[in-house]
Amino acid sequence: MAIHALMLRDKPRCAAYAAALRGADLEGKAVLDVGAGTGLLSVLAAKAGARAVYAIEASGLAAAIQAAADANGVGDRVHVLHCRAEDAELPERVEVIVSEWMGFHLYHESMLDSVLAARDRWLAEGGLMLPSRVRVMAAPVCADAIIEERLAPFADCEGVDLSCFIGPAAQQLLEANPQVAVLDGAALLAQPRCLDEAELHTLPVAQAGRVAAEAVFVATKEAVCHGYAVWFECDFLKAAPPAGGDGNEFGTAEADEVVVTMLSTGPEAEPTHWKQTVVLLPEQLGASPGARLDCAFRLSPDPRMPRNCVLQ
Amino acid sequence: MAIHALMLRDKPRCAAYAAALRGADLEGKAVLDVGAGTGLLSVLAAKAGARAVYAIEASGLAAAIQAAADANGVGDRVHVLHCRAEDAELPERVEVIVSEWMGFHLYHESMLDSVLAARDRWLAEGGLMLPSRVRVMAAPVCADAIIEERLAPFADCEGVDLSCFIGPAAQQLLEANPQVAVLDGAALLAQPRCLDEAELHTLPVAQAGRVAAEAVFVATKEAVCHGYAVWFECDFLKAAPPAGGDGNEFGTAEADEVVVTMLSTGPEAEPTHWKQTVVLLPEQLGASPGARLDCAFRLSPDPRMPRNCVLQ
Repeated sequence: MAIHALMLRDKPRCAAYAAALRGADLEGKAVLDVGAGTGLLSVLAAKAGARAVYAIEASGLAAAIQAAADANGVGDRVHVLHCRAEDAELPERVEVIVSEWMGFHLYHESMLDSVLAARDRWLAEGGLMLPSRVRVMAAPVCADAIIEERLAPFADCEGVDLSCFIGPAAQQLLEANPQVAVLDGAALLAQPRCLDEAELHTLPVAQAGRVAAEAVFVATKEAVCHGYAVWFECDFLKAAPPAGGDGNEFGTAEADEVVVTMLSTGPEAEPTHWKQTVVLLPEQLGASPGARLDCAFRLSPDPRMPRNCVLQ
Repeated sequence: MAIHALMLRDKPRCAAYAAALRGADLEGKAVLDVGAGTGLLSVLAAKAGARAVYAIEASGLAAAIQAAADANGVGDRVHVLHCRAEDAELPERVEVIVSEWMGFHLYHESMLDSVLAARDRWLAEGGLMLPSRVRVMAAPVCADAIIEERLAPFADCEGVDLSCFIGPAAQQLLEANPQVAVLDGAALLAQPRCLDEAELHTLPVAQAGRVAAEAVFVATKEAVCHGYAVWFECDFLKAAPPAGGDGNEFGTAEADEVVVTMLSTGPEAEPTHWKQTVVLLPEQLGASPGARLDCAFRLSPDPRMPRNCVLQ
């Protein structure tokens, strides 16, 4: 329950989903909630007018979701399926799939595979995915908050110089790469770049969670660059993009008009429980306005951890 | 190194030791630092005039302590022994043993056994232990900070009532007892009581870490009592109490005169990395001024964790 309390306290997350479900035209439609957890999204969908909501939840929480739906006056429209997403049998196809599957730097230990498998089986043609589009973002950063916490204490403590420990401490910090931490907008040393954008209505399952990208950054300030921060953004659309699009509609005026809300987990947004993922460099770089801070990124499945972010 | 950075950033901890070592008469004396870590206390002792400081450290940090002592100009007086405290061979007895051995609620995973064993082998007659006296303290508390974080999110999220999850969440919270958390002075519902006071110059090794106590508390305010907080205090004396005392000198004017500094990890003190240990009750109690909130406490070694705090 502690993780659910954490997620429910994440205001930007919950507010984005609530706005997305209110903004989508759910009246009379069937909705599937993959990994329903406490049932928050299922209840929000039902309250937004959905005719039927199928809440799939594999954990023991499933038993209580019905009670939660009842308590909110939508118990007759929420149908709980206590099983894994892959094993679910629905009585009909759905017009909307909603799911909160995102992990650290988007794909780390995410449930996206299950969500896309459910899409291929249960989403009606022209149906809507919520979230609809996801982007992995990155930027070079000054990670003073982390450095200050982990290295500065050795510089001086009660008048004692322990700086001979800074080297080993910095080495351990690097070995713990990447780190999940909260930075703020001032940490950004360049305009963030999108490493990868995925359209969830069409993304093939086999491609999910794999990102290989190079990004060119131009420093905007004089500062020490400790490494790169990686985070994600989600767009929630009002309706699915037209079929047969080649992806070039991203960013056009037509596409933007249907974005109901956007959830950003970046340094410039209100902090979320995803924080940012920071990859520290072995050596600090000096950044000056106009200087290039390029980097190659790769996100790929790790045998030990389903998705791991590796900087190359 | 992360744990050492955390400890060095703990200002009340470091300041108390620095004051204790400055306040003790170390001039020309031999000092033993058990579990020296980064060597901070060894360097402080040498800077305070100690003739010789023996820094025992079993970890790989031992190699760097000499460099730290050199960097602070006391390398000729700090002698590093890279071994377990039990295996150390010193060339002489010492007049002072300093050690930072305290764990959560004092005895949890503490190194006290090793320190007392070193005392029995190496402390000269009349020698000084730093810290000198330790107390386990307790008080009934209103733990709103914990409750708010863990249970309140289920009360309402985006207009959805998830209160049917509060019961299970509260149950899990109880199963996670005790919790290490920071409370503030306002959380205290009664005058704190001392559950146990130990004089480290005389405490038998076999008795270390065992506390069984009942405490009578009288509520001082109208509030909800969620449970009890346990923490510790350390007195650092200028000199060891006279031999043959029966313990009744605690708290007398004569004894108080030799207290150089006191480190408190309680809710009313500046927060430390030890925070407080909070034991939640299965049922919340209502407290009113004058009401009794009695409790029995037991601290005893746990086979899985060296010291565990159990509420009975």
